[in-house]
Amino acid sequence: MGIINKDAVCQIALVVKDIERTAANYAELFGIEVPQIFSTLPEEESHTQYRGNPTKTRAKLAVIDLGQIVLELTEPDDEPSSWKEFLETNGEGVHHIGFTVSDRVKVIEYFASKGVPIRHYGEYPGGNYTFMDSVKELGVILNIKPGAQS
Amino acid sequence: MGIINKDAVCQIALVVKDIERTAANYAELFGIEVPQIFSTLPEEESHTQYRGNPTKTRAKLAVIDLGQIVLELTEPDDEPSSWKEFLETNGEGVHHIGFTVSDRVKVIEYFASKGVPIRHYGEYPGGNYTFMDSVKELGVILNIKPGAQS
Repeated sequence: MGIINKDAVCQIALVVKDIERTAANYAELFGIEVPQIFSTLPEEESHTQYRGNPTKTRAKLAVIDLGQIVLELTEPDDEPSSWKEFLETNGEGVHHIGFTVSDRVKVIEYFASKGVPIRHYGEYPGGNYTFMDSVKELGVILNIKPGAQS
Repeated sequence: MGIINKDAVCQIALVVKDIERTAANYAELFGIEVPQIFSTLPEEESHTQYRGNPTKTRAKLAVIDLGQIVLELTEPDDEPSSWKEFLETNGEGVHHIGFTVSDRVKVIEYFASKGVPIRHYGEYPGGNYTFMDSVKELGVILNIKPGAQS
């Protein structure tokens, strides 16, 4: 057993420039209804932090169920965030891969021991998410979500 | 029913600079054996094409089973390829998301009608893969793999 259960992959998340347009394109491609688009919560509720500092970012999100995993679309706003940094640095693309973990602290401590810091953190009703700055180690940002591991 | 069955997602594929190092990092993270690293076939067998032209690229690959999907690691070589272009343009990251499709031609014709060309094509024993240049439409390159749709 490792630090993360590989079968607990739960999410592929994209950063896009125009979420309404991209969501409509996926809806046509998959033959589904256009997914609902919503925003992350205000800072008072989400306690969002980007590279250790509070941020007022309120990204737009949409989620498409793909079975074991979901495809998440994200359109950043102009406030500092991991999504905005990614879009400015990389352009549109996959921002992170998400895994559910049973012990969030253990995973974060493991990454800290490898020199991998937290890049962005936020909360939503019933949960939270933590983006690890793991591109140098793993080729991609990982999202750590507390929950059942598979 | 759309052009692609969304539940037929089968692959998240990364481009990395050092596949041996990244594969070892994932093996430690997941508590698994280091995956075998192999190369794509020579051009005579793979018939690889990059943006419409034959290429001698032989990327290194490793595959980690995550359940419904696999995580594929790819290290490009110096020959022209979609992977090399991605690494030079975007740096390390998710190169594509793969879906199995029952009618490859229909999917390619659909994308052509949207102005989305084939970016890269190759063959392997028992199959083939086609990277669509779909970043503007879908925020990510899609890989189209013939096979069962779910």
